[in-house]
Amino acid sequence: MIYLTADRVREYIHKVGLEVFMDQVIAQLEVDYSNWHSFSKSPRHATHYPHGVIELMPISDDELYGFKYVNGHPRNAAAGRLNIVGFGVLADVATGFPLMLSEMTWLTAIRTACMTALVARYGKLAVAKTVGIVGCGAQAEFQCLALSRVMEIGVIHYYDIDAGAMAKFSANLADMNLECRAASSIEEVCLSSDVLVTATAFKGESSLVEREWLKPGQFIAGVGGDCPGKTEFSKELLNDFSIVVEYLEQTREEGEIQNLKDLTGVLEFWQVVNGEVILRRSDDAIVFFDSVGFALEDLSILKVMYQGFVEDDQQLDGGLIPQVDDVKDLYGALMLRG
Amino acid sequence: MIYLTADRVREYIHKVGLEVFMDQVIAQLEVDYSNWHSFSKSPRHATHYPHGVIELMPISDDELYGFKYVNGHPRNAAAGRLNIVGFGVLADVATGFPLMLSEMTWLTAIRTACMTALVARYGKLAVAKTVGIVGCGAQAEFQCLALSRVMEIGVIHYYDIDAGAMAKFSANLADMNLECRAASSIEEVCLSSDVLVTATAFKGESSLVEREWLKPGQFIAGVGGDCPGKTEFSKELLNDFSIVVEYLEQTREEGEIQNLKDLTGVLEFWQVVNGEVILRRSDDAIVFFDSVGFALEDLSILKVMYQGFVEDDQQLDGGLIPQVDDVKDLYGALMLRG
Repeated sequence: MIYLTADRVREYIHKVGLEVFMDQVIAQLEVDYSNWHSFSKSPRHATHYPHGVIELMPISDDELYGFKYVNGHPRNAAAGRLNIVGFGVLADVATGFPLMLSEMTWLTAIRTACMTALVARYGKLAVAKTVGIVGCGAQAEFQCLALSRVMEIGVIHYYDIDAGAMAKFSANLADMNLECRAASSIEEVCLSSDVLVTATAFKGESSLVEREWLKPGQFIAGVGGDCPGKTEFSKELLNDFSIVVEYLEQTREEGEIQNLKDLTGVLEFWQVVNGEVILRRSDDAIVFFDSVGFALEDLSILKVMYQGFVEDDQQLDGGLIPQVDDVKDLYGALMLRG
Repeated sequence: MIYLTADRVREYIHKVGLEVFMDQVIAQLEVDYSNWHSFSKSPRHATHYPHGVIELMPISDDELYGFKYVNGHPRNAAAGRLNIVGFGVLADVATGFPLMLSEMTWLTAIRTACMTALVARYGKLAVAKTVGIVGCGAQAEFQCLALSRVMEIGVIHYYDIDAGAMAKFSANLADMNLECRAASSIEEVCLSSDVLVTATAFKGESSLVEREWLKPGQFIAGVGGDCPGKTEFSKELLNDFSIVVEYLEQTREEGEIQNLKDLTGVLEFWQVVNGEVILRRSDDAIVFFDSVGFALEDLSILKVMYQGFVEDDQQLDGGLIPQVDDVKDLYGALMLRG
C-alpha cells in the first residue's frame, strides 16, 4: 500500500507542477463523469454536530473502490485550525486490499477547484475573461488557478470580509502571474465578473448576492453551500438560473437547491459531459453550478495520484496491513516477535 | 495524529499481553454497550461485489467519532491473501481532526472475539466448561482466548474441513495452555460443547448444524454469517433459540436472522447489559448470539488503543494532516518548498 503523507503529496505536486497536475485531474474528472453509470453511488455518510460535520464519501466501480474521510468545522479557523481536513483511500475491488492511503486536505481543495473549472468549460460564455471571487479563504487560489486552465483570465476581482484573507490572496495570486483587483463589496465583484465563484464558510442560510448585481451570461459556481442549512443563494435567485449539480440525490439535501420545491430542470453534470443535455441554452442565461463535492471527484484525484506513484510504492508502504505467511494463522502472526 | 502500523499494534499487544488487552477490551465493550443511546448509529455502508464486500463502519457520540474500513473476500485465502483486512480511525468530534489511524486486521479479530466473550458471560450457563469451535480459520484462536477470560475452559473441541487449519489451531492453542481435542465432524463438536462458536468463511446459505446435535442450555455464537446471503444456521433452528444481536437494524440484513420473518423476541445486547431484559430465561434454553460485528465494537477497541498510546504520540505522527501556519492559506502552505 502506498502511504502518502501531506509532505509527500506536496513534494509530488511540486515535481509535477500544480498546473499540470490540475490538467490531469480535470481530464480524469471528465473521463469519470462520462462513465457515470459504471459507478456504485450513494450520498455521503454525514454525522452532524452542532458545530460541524464528519463525513465518509465512498464510491466504487468494478475495479477500484475509493473513499474519503473529511470534516467541516467552520469554527476551527478562529482557533488556528483548518476548517476542513481529509484523507482518502483507493482500494482494489478484486481483493479488498487498500492500494493507497493519502492525505486529502490539499487534494480536496484541488479536486473541488478542478471540478469548478471543468463545469465552467461547459457552462461559461466563450468570451468570458473576468473572474470574481467571493470569499478568499482556503479554496480561493485553487479556484483561480484551476479556472486559468480552461479560460484566459484577464482580471480577478475578489472580496472577503477579512482584509487579512484578501491580502494573503493577492500575494499568492501575484506569484501565479494572475492580475487581481481588490473589490470593496460583493456587489462590485459580481458586477465585474464573467465567471463568479462564491466560497464562504458561513454556516447558515445566507443570501450573498442580489439579483440586480448579476450579469446576463454569467457562470456562477456556488462552492460554499454544502451542508443542510448552509446556503449562499436565495430561492428566488435560484429560480432564475440554469442549474447543474454533481449528483442530485446528494445535492438536494446539501446544496443551494435544498430549499427548492421543484427540481425539474436541474441537470446532473454527467448528462452534460455525455452530450445528453446542453448546459448553456442561451447567451443570456445565468448558468449555476451547485458545487457540494461528490465522492467521484475524490476517486478521480486519487486515481491521478496513484498513477503518479505506482512505480515506487516499495519505499512508501504504510505498514497498515499485517504480513502473514499462513493467511489462516492470523493469531500466530500476531504472537510472533516482530 | 497517532499512526499505528500493524507492527506497532503487535508490539503494543506483546507489551501489554493479549489476555490483559482482551480484558480491557471486554470491559470497554461493556461500558460502551451500556451507553447505547449516546451513540449516533447507522448500519455499515457496504458495497457488494460478486466475490466480496467492502465496508465502512462509522459511529459517533458527542466526543469521539470512529470508523473502520474492512473487506470480506472469501476467495482471497486460496490466493495466499487474508480474507479480511481493515484499518480504522478515531477522530475528535470537537475539531473533526483524526486522533489516531490504526491497523484493524488484528484489532477486528480481537474485538470480535471479545464481543463473543462478553455476550457469553451473560448468556452461557454458570457451569459451562467445554468450548466447541467449528471453523479453525483466522478467528478461531482469538475466540478461544477471549472465552478463557470469562469462563474456566476445560477442553476445546474443534473441527475444520481443512486439516492444515486444524493443525495450526492446535499448535497455537498448545502455546496458550488450553487443552484441545480434534473432532472428526461438526456433530462431534456440537455434542461435546457447552459454548459453541461457528466461524466459517463459506459464502452462501449453509446449514452447518442439525437440531439433534445441540444440547439444552448451550450458548452458541454464530460468527461466520455476516453478509446478505451468507448464513450458517437454518431458519427452523433459529426459531428454537433465544437470540441476541448487536444492532437489529444491521443484523436483520446481514446476520443469521436475515431469513426470519418474525423478529419479535430478538433482543439487542444493550438491553441485556442494562438489565432491561434477561438473556437466559431458563437452564434449558439455547442462547444464540448472532454476531455480525458492529461499528461500536471498533470504536471500543480503538478507544482502548488510544488510551494506551496517547502519551507518546509525537513519535508516531502519521503526517496525514498538513501543517499550516495561516489556516486560510492552504494554497500558500502547498506552494512552500517543504
